[in-house]
Amino acid sequence: MTDIFFPKSCERWGLFEISCPGFSDRNPFADYNIQAVFKHKNGSVKVDGFYDGDGIYKVRFMPSFTGEYSFDISGNFSNKSYSGNFTAEAASENNHGPVRVTNTYHFAYEDGSLYYPVGTTCYVWELQSGELQKKTLETLSKGYFNKIRFCLFPKHYDYNLTEPRSYPYEGKPMDSSVLTKENFLKYNGAGREAGNEWDFTRFNSEHFQHIDKCIASLCSLGIEADLIVMHPYDRWGFSNMKEEEDDHYWKYVIARYAAYRNVWWSLANEYDLMPQKKLSDWERYASIICEKDPYSHLRSIHNCRPFYDYTRPWITHCCIQRQDIYKCAELTAEYRQRYGKPIVLDEIAYEGNIQHGWGNISGKEMVRRFWEAACRGGYAGHGETFFHPKDILWWSHGGELHGESPQRLAFLQRILKDTPAAGLAPFDGGWDTVAAKADEVFDRGVYYIYYFSFMRPSFRVFHFDENTKYQVEVIDTWEMTIENRGIHSGTFKVELPGKEYMAIRIRKQEK
Amino acid sequence: MTDIFFPKSCERWGLFEISCPGFSDRNPFADYNIQAVFKHKNGSVKVDGFYDGDGIYKVRFMPSFTGEYSFDISGNFSNKSYSGNFTAEAASENNHGPVRVTNTYHFAYEDGSLYYPVGTTCYVWELQSGELQKKTLETLSKGYFNKIRFCLFPKHYDYNLTEPRSYPYEGKPMDSSVLTKENFLKYNGAGREAGNEWDFTRFNSEHFQHIDKCIASLCSLGIEADLIVMHPYDRWGFSNMKEEEDDHYWKYVIARYAAYRNVWWSLANEYDLMPQKKLSDWERYASIICEKDPYSHLRSIHNCRPFYDYTRPWITHCCIQRQDIYKCAELTAEYRQRYGKPIVLDEIAYEGNIQHGWGNISGKEMVRRFWEAACRGGYAGHGETFFHPKDILWWSHGGELHGESPQRLAFLQRILKDTPAAGLAPFDGGWDTVAAKADEVFDRGVYYIYYFSFMRPSFRVFHFDENTKYQVEVIDTWEMTIENRGIHSGTFKVELPGKEYMAIRIRKQEK
Repeated sequence: MTDIFFPKSCERWGLFEISCPGFSDRNPFADYNIQAVFKHKNGSVKVDGFYDGDGIYKVRFMPSFTGEYSFDISGNFSNKSYSGNFTAEAASENNHGPVRVTNTYHFAYEDGSLYYPVGTTCYVWELQSGELQKKTLETLSKGYFNKIRFCLFPKHYDYNLTEPRSYPYEGKPMDSSVLTKENFLKYNGAGREAGNEWDFTRFNSEHFQHIDKCIASLCSLGIEADLIVMHPYDRWGFSNMKEEEDDHYWKYVIARYAAYRNVWWSLANEYDLMPQKKLSDWERYASIICEKDPYSHLRSIHNCRPFYDYTRPWITHCCIQRQDIYKCAELTAEYRQRYGKPIVLDEIAYEGNIQHGWGNISGKEMVRRFWEAACRGGYAGHGETFFHPKDILWWSHGGELHGESPQRLAFLQRILKDTPAAGLAPFDGGWDTVAAKADEVFDRGVYYIYYFSFMRPSFRVFHFDENTKYQVEVIDTWEMTIENRGIHSGTFKVELPGKEYMAIRIRKQEK
Repeated sequence: MTDIFFPKSCERWGLFEISCPGFSDRNPFADYNIQAVFKHKNGSVKVDGFYDGDGIYKVRFMPSFTGEYSFDISGNFSNKSYSGNFTAEAASENNHGPVRVTNTYHFAYEDGSLYYPVGTTCYVWELQSGELQKKTLETLSKGYFNKIRFCLFPKHYDYNLTEPRSYPYEGKPMDSSVLTKENFLKYNGAGREAGNEWDFTRFNSEHFQHIDKCIASLCSLGIEADLIVMHPYDRWGFSNMKEEEDDHYWKYVIARYAAYRNVWWSLANEYDLMPQKKLSDWERYASIICEKDPYSHLRSIHNCRPFYDYTRPWITHCCIQRQDIYKCAELTAEYRQRYGKPIVLDEIAYEGNIQHGWGNISGKEMVRRFWEAACRGGYAGHGETFFHPKDILWWSHGGELHGESPQRLAFLQRILKDTPAAGLAPFDGGWDTVAAKADEVFDRGVYYIYYFSFMRPSFRVFHFDENTKYQVEVIDTWEMTIENRGIHSGTFKVELPGKEYMAIRIRKQEK
């Protein structure tokens, strides 16, 4: 390639990519740089590019507007300077832009259409065999989930002792044949002394190019990619790099992935299990994102035990792992009040049967926790950890789902999509009911859900306005049925089957 | 009767009763009194008697020792003075004496045999029709429970609108035909203005004589009678008497029932729903019991929302109603630490399907709560509230049981009886296990139960002493099976079925 390459048009919120030839001597990842400024009548945006191997530098950009854009490329990557222009077309049908916070506690795409997260976790699905990745995407295409959390670095942990398909850096890993189910923990945070040999200044482009494709595949399925940029479960030393190596990594990741509209930034999984990182480190990474991500993708950080301070201004929403075995989703309203941000409970234990207590709840309990969170105005997250003869667990590896919850979570999402507001809010519907209403600044009192969790009332009596007509439905959250119980006014009784996991929905009948 | 009547012998901890003729003019309940002093070589005990109608005064006494007793009767009930003697024989086979606190957190009968409470609640079973009472006793004779909570006053509440079989005072009740399921709450605490006409100085002896028989029937079934002496659910004004009327009632109740070895004193059900009673009233009633009950039966008081101060010295054990819908039995260890007394969680929601959230959990959830409490060194309480065409709910009326939990609670009691100590104590068996050991001052490390609650591990690995042999059993707390898994030492793996409600028991094998 002797000149830059870029398309003449791109859809709004699509990925616009410019490929530029440049120097490949020395260390192009570290010694050369590339930037671009994109201009539109509404303003200009500066973005960093990155070296993608084979003498090619890339600049990626996500146009926020339709219309004409021009760009100017600079940097020491080349002696030449480049510029060009392109047209941003209207977004295609299933492209709603990146997800934003709306109405304080909820989410909407940038085009205003609402987004109700029903996320799952497959920590390193993209680093498995090609066949398994294909199966994961097939499973995801069934539409149970609209967000997936996964790591950019490989994962070392119980059930995660094999080699990943590729590594993020040039070099070679420690010999994993020494690992057993009994001794793996002692290799956590291992580095050079264990036999790892990495050049932390040289990225393995192929590793990250592969993740490009995975993010794009998810995007085409309408699934948000909640990228876990750092995590503690590591035998290679990626969790133990120096400050400048970390910063180099963060800038590369942002330059590479920020232009994908479906990206969310999760600074870490279980940040508090990385004692090698200080609070000032996390705040520094956050400041790099805030500076370098021109699109302000959603940003959060996930705990094991103590929560990060979710009031920090850079945090757009809470990513919470439960702190108590018995109560978590039940605390959603308290978390809303404490943090004033969307509450995403992305680890509330996984459906499964493995030996670890975080990975062996029933599908019924999983679905119950989702409804508890939803009716309190927040969002829970799914994961699955069934014992498997080949150690293929959805939670880390993807593949097939074996549990009973996913279809029920899709059903919950259908219910959420009926909300005549940006989401649900908790309200006091009696001490023994989880009551939700449309989450509006001005409560129009038109939409209520009463969820009974593990309680099994045979009926409930409601006291509503005598002069308004209300549509009453009985929802079986497990059997996924919605039963029309007719139009009522004033005081009325709703019969229930005396089963667990029932809900009553009451809506004002529009004239 | 022209002279006193009493038997020549009585078994130890049996009910010894003396009937004495006396004045029946004026108001014998209020204007005359009777006392007796019982002497034994080990010491003397003074007790109050009571007027039992038809010119007969009674003195009841429970001998704590075997051997010769003499007594002297005094009081203004008669111009005569009486005395006599009798022999206290050895206790019969199923008579172990009153229940006491042992080993700080547990219970034992006075003869030293251990008592693991598995209680139920039938608030006014004894005030139902004779036929229904007979059915209740038949049900109780199946041995699911060894304690029952019930009220001396009739109960007014939802599903409790009919008339009791008798009233505690002479007079007449309000017209209950005005009551409906909708308006009953407005009659709570009603008095004379609602049409009630009672003479609070004159007890209805027949009412209390009937309860005598009920306590005795329970005693013969080996069931403790946890007497709820006051409660707020009242349309007759019994919860709203004056100070001197309350004290008169308390003294009568103690004189009448204290000599039954199976009596426990529960000052109130939901004391905090009786705003008409001040803290000083409860403390005064407690001081009356402490003064007048010579046998120091167990004493406690039950809450609706705020706990009573269970550190009060007169309180022998905590009677706790859960404060949180999701967590209660799970807090047992904290309660033990806070109060340093036995923890009895006598209201943790009832198995059933009625509309009230306190009365519609599943049998599985009920049994789970019992195990959570037991493995944390405390005791839960049962109740049942299934919707019934004739409004006969075990919780208030007794009758038949319809739930799935009772047989599983009996199974738990069998497990508890195997404990090689006075009871279980919680210990740290890992964050995701409810682990119990024998509750001993000197931990001999010989008996462990690991309970997995709603978690479903497929196996667990244990690390024990290499040089000791341990008997391993897998307990299915729901299916009520105990599976022998052989003898193990050192590190060993126990396979589990990946189901909810499983436990593993590990015991040192005796040589």
